[in-house]
Amino acid sequence: MSTSALPSRESDFPGWYVEVVKRAELAEHGPARGSMIMRPHGYAIWELTQRALDDRFKATGHENVYFPLLIPMSLLAKEADHVEGFEPQVAVVTRGGGEELDEPLAIRPSSESIIWNTYRRWVQSYRDLPLLYNQWANVMRWELRPRLFLRTTEFLWQEGHTAHATSHEAMTEALRMLEVYREVAEEVLAIPVLPGRKSPGERFPGAVETFTIEGLMRDGKALQCGTSHFLGQNFGRAYDVTFLDADGQTEHAWGTSWGFSARMVGATIMAHGDDAGLRLPPAVAPIQVAVVPIYRSDEERQAVLGVAESLRADLAAAGVRVRLDDRDQHRPGYKFAEWELKGVPVRIEIGPRDVQAGRVIVASRLGGDRQEVALADIVSGMPDRLADIQSALFGDALAFRDANTHEIASFESFAEGLNERGGFWTGPWCANADCEAEISAKTKATIRLLPIEPREPGSACMHCGRPGVETATWARAY
Amino acid sequence: MSTSALPSRESDFPGWYVEVVKRAELAEHGPARGSMIMRPHGYAIWELTQRALDDRFKATGHENVYFPLLIPMSLLAKEADHVEGFEPQVAVVTRGGGEELDEPLAIRPSSESIIWNTYRRWVQSYRDLPLLYNQWANVMRWELRPRLFLRTTEFLWQEGHTAHATSHEAMTEALRMLEVYREVAEEVLAIPVLPGRKSPGERFPGAVETFTIEGLMRDGKALQCGTSHFLGQNFGRAYDVTFLDADGQTEHAWGTSWGFSARMVGATIMAHGDDAGLRLPPAVAPIQVAVVPIYRSDEERQAVLGVAESLRADLAAAGVRVRLDDRDQHRPGYKFAEWELKGVPVRIEIGPRDVQAGRVIVASRLGGDRQEVALADIVSGMPDRLADIQSALFGDALAFRDANTHEIASFESFAEGLNERGGFWTGPWCANADCEAEISAKTKATIRLLPIEPREPGSACMHCGRPGVETATWARAY
Repeated sequence: MSTSALPSRESDFPGWYVEVVKRAELAEHGPARGSMIMRPHGYAIWELTQRALDDRFKATGHENVYFPLLIPMSLLAKEADHVEGFEPQVAVVTRGGGEELDEPLAIRPSSESIIWNTYRRWVQSYRDLPLLYNQWANVMRWELRPRLFLRTTEFLWQEGHTAHATSHEAMTEALRMLEVYREVAEEVLAIPVLPGRKSPGERFPGAVETFTIEGLMRDGKALQCGTSHFLGQNFGRAYDVTFLDADGQTEHAWGTSWGFSARMVGATIMAHGDDAGLRLPPAVAPIQVAVVPIYRSDEERQAVLGVAESLRADLAAAGVRVRLDDRDQHRPGYKFAEWELKGVPVRIEIGPRDVQAGRVIVASRLGGDRQEVALADIVSGMPDRLADIQSALFGDALAFRDANTHEIASFESFAEGLNERGGFWTGPWCANADCEAEISAKTKATIRLLPIEPREPGSACMHCGRPGVETATWARAY
Repeated sequence: MSTSALPSRESDFPGWYVEVVKRAELAEHGPARGSMIMRPHGYAIWELTQRALDDRFKATGHENVYFPLLIPMSLLAKEADHVEGFEPQVAVVTRGGGEELDEPLAIRPSSESIIWNTYRRWVQSYRDLPLLYNQWANVMRWELRPRLFLRTTEFLWQEGHTAHATSHEAMTEALRMLEVYREVAEEVLAIPVLPGRKSPGERFPGAVETFTIEGLMRDGKALQCGTSHFLGQNFGRAYDVTFLDADGQTEHAWGTSWGFSARMVGATIMAHGDDAGLRLPPAVAPIQVAVVPIYRSDEERQAVLGVAESLRADLAAAGVRVRLDDRDQHRPGYKFAEWELKGVPVRIEIGPRDVQAGRVIVASRLGGDRQEVALADIVSGMPDRLADIQSALFGDALAFRDANTHEIASFESFAEGLNERGGFWTGPWCANADCEAEISAKTKATIRLLPIEPREPGSACMHCGRPGVETATWARAY
């Protein structure tokens, strides 16, 4: 571990992010351009997030499936908007088994095409519906400006793909999964998010509506944290997925798709980190408690390590993810800094005098007093202690978000405010794509979301002065 | 569900396998040649197997990581044996983001090359060792004769990659992970396996030793169920992974790798299935108990479904994976056949008279009497009932394996016996590769394994008559 200070989060956010990812051993660049290697500490955060999502998918009636990585180019091309959106980003396999392929194969940028092509065989009657499927997969979208976790050519995600007999049912599903995403973002990753609807220009290629949850990072930039798409009958028509309804009529199936990716590890870094490094929400902290023994002599070492190991075992038995840091080659101060850098929520220090007094020192990654706690109370008190840290991190991020969410008084004040401090800015918009594009060109901000139910602002568009049709929330974004 | 009989397992094993995979809705072919779509019932078996493996990896000190899918061809080529083994099977990406790539990228056939190339940066001192990492991933090996689950171009697996300071430690690790595989195969999938060592000709490309567990399918063919490789310093040298040992000497790191794949879903089908379809070990049965209500009138339906639903809820609360089959469009007999086809270990039938008498009928997928059981005893008795089925399936497969494992008396009797009934055949071998190749050419059998500790048979090679050097176990294999 490097012992020099991190770049300041306040004055050099991008440099701070790069160094935190590197020094906390979360990830690094792979040999092929734009690729990423997820190291154990980074992967474990994703694994815990996966579990939280997967449990909720199953509780809402979904099953997991797995579709192939490679999609014939002709199949990808069947939904016109979809292929137009993705083709420029596709990686293409042209050789296999030592020979040129007859038809090039795309590495999936998303799996709507191959899945809907299969649903055609799986759906005949309304009794076959709904199909409520999800897959955990790697996908690939060629990126010119890669950034670890946030934008890499290959990334890990889940993609849900459902088919329904009615428009209403599909819309209900799209919104239900958005709510699952909101819950995981807020209750698991402790990142407050704004749920909303994308403007037509920001929709997923092939979707009728795209819903989103948007978080705010500590540099005032927004991050799209998950999207859920109402596909209407677009893919049902493009891939000819029809069914006989209860009245014997043939209809095209209605669809949704929804995705949540490992970029959320990056969001967790950027929503909570400070100048000492990561601050991880206990729900996704691979190590929730680090126990650091303090000793000089061999005799002290033996006494302290005995108690420390038994504390570790008790915490582990109680379901706490705990690490006893018994490395001899590092001094306690070095270890404190390392576990802070890695975002471990709780640190327990045990020295020879603590052992004698039957107590330990407990420090929270969120700061505040280091507390003396009786050894006997550590295990029973840990769930509350971790829950408190979880909600304090959420509260902290929420306060930051609230302090950086503004009503737009005028286009000028919006543009100026954005430059000064970023944040979310909400105001009246005429709902014209040209006006949206002009605002984006002038401010580098995009519409992050519209309210799920359209809401007329009751005043003129902040930019062009035409009648306000939508209430739009803008931000600069990752 | 098709209601016609399955092909007979005895007389048409390949046809039986294809139909079971299809009708039990486990998997189907994807649009690109050799690709596979895993349906919910098939994927869930793999998911439960993954969980069993992953828990054991973590309990033995391993952490998960994720390395990129795409490997520059030049990197893959650094270990000469490795590239020679895999290059003919590689799928190659030559275009990305609309442009020809400067260097073609291989889709990983296995990840030793990219991982050892990275270990070079992660390892400096003996204190950095061991690295005990695993990844869950898709890999791709071009296959000319695909077969669902058993041999597909893309497949899902885990690959462990560890680096160590000593040969002894690496060898211990390779054998420890073989033992983890044996445990999961036997205790979770209920498939008895023979652990052993591969002959040089059957080794993993780049390995010093390959260890294997081999199972026997019901057609008398062997299936390699998992392999663990002692890599020596081959990859340490090829990718220049060196460390300073405790004495300040520079050494190359020692390695292992080990893999277990979703082909084991295929093994589970072929080791246990019968003419009615799948027989799933409860440990990996996505549905352990199917509750089938029986009724004629609406009144009966209401009474029966009330009790059935409350039984379902009680079983679910007790951690049993249970499905209440309340579909109105199918008759009970149809449902019985479907759950048998899908391998559900326990079926519970509830009719109106059962409700009145406070009992149900319990049927095991393994056959035997349908038992009347008091409703009040169902939940408490279920763990034992499932455990009994789990061990009965293992016992059944073990008896089959034992009945089909033979000592080789002479080459002729071996060749004849293989033709008649397949099975494992053990006998003296001279340890010459040419003799091995001749035997294989004559019999279509391969050496499945040698004892982990070489064992001189004490008699002449069964084929060439030269002195016996190894005791080899042969079989025809998938």
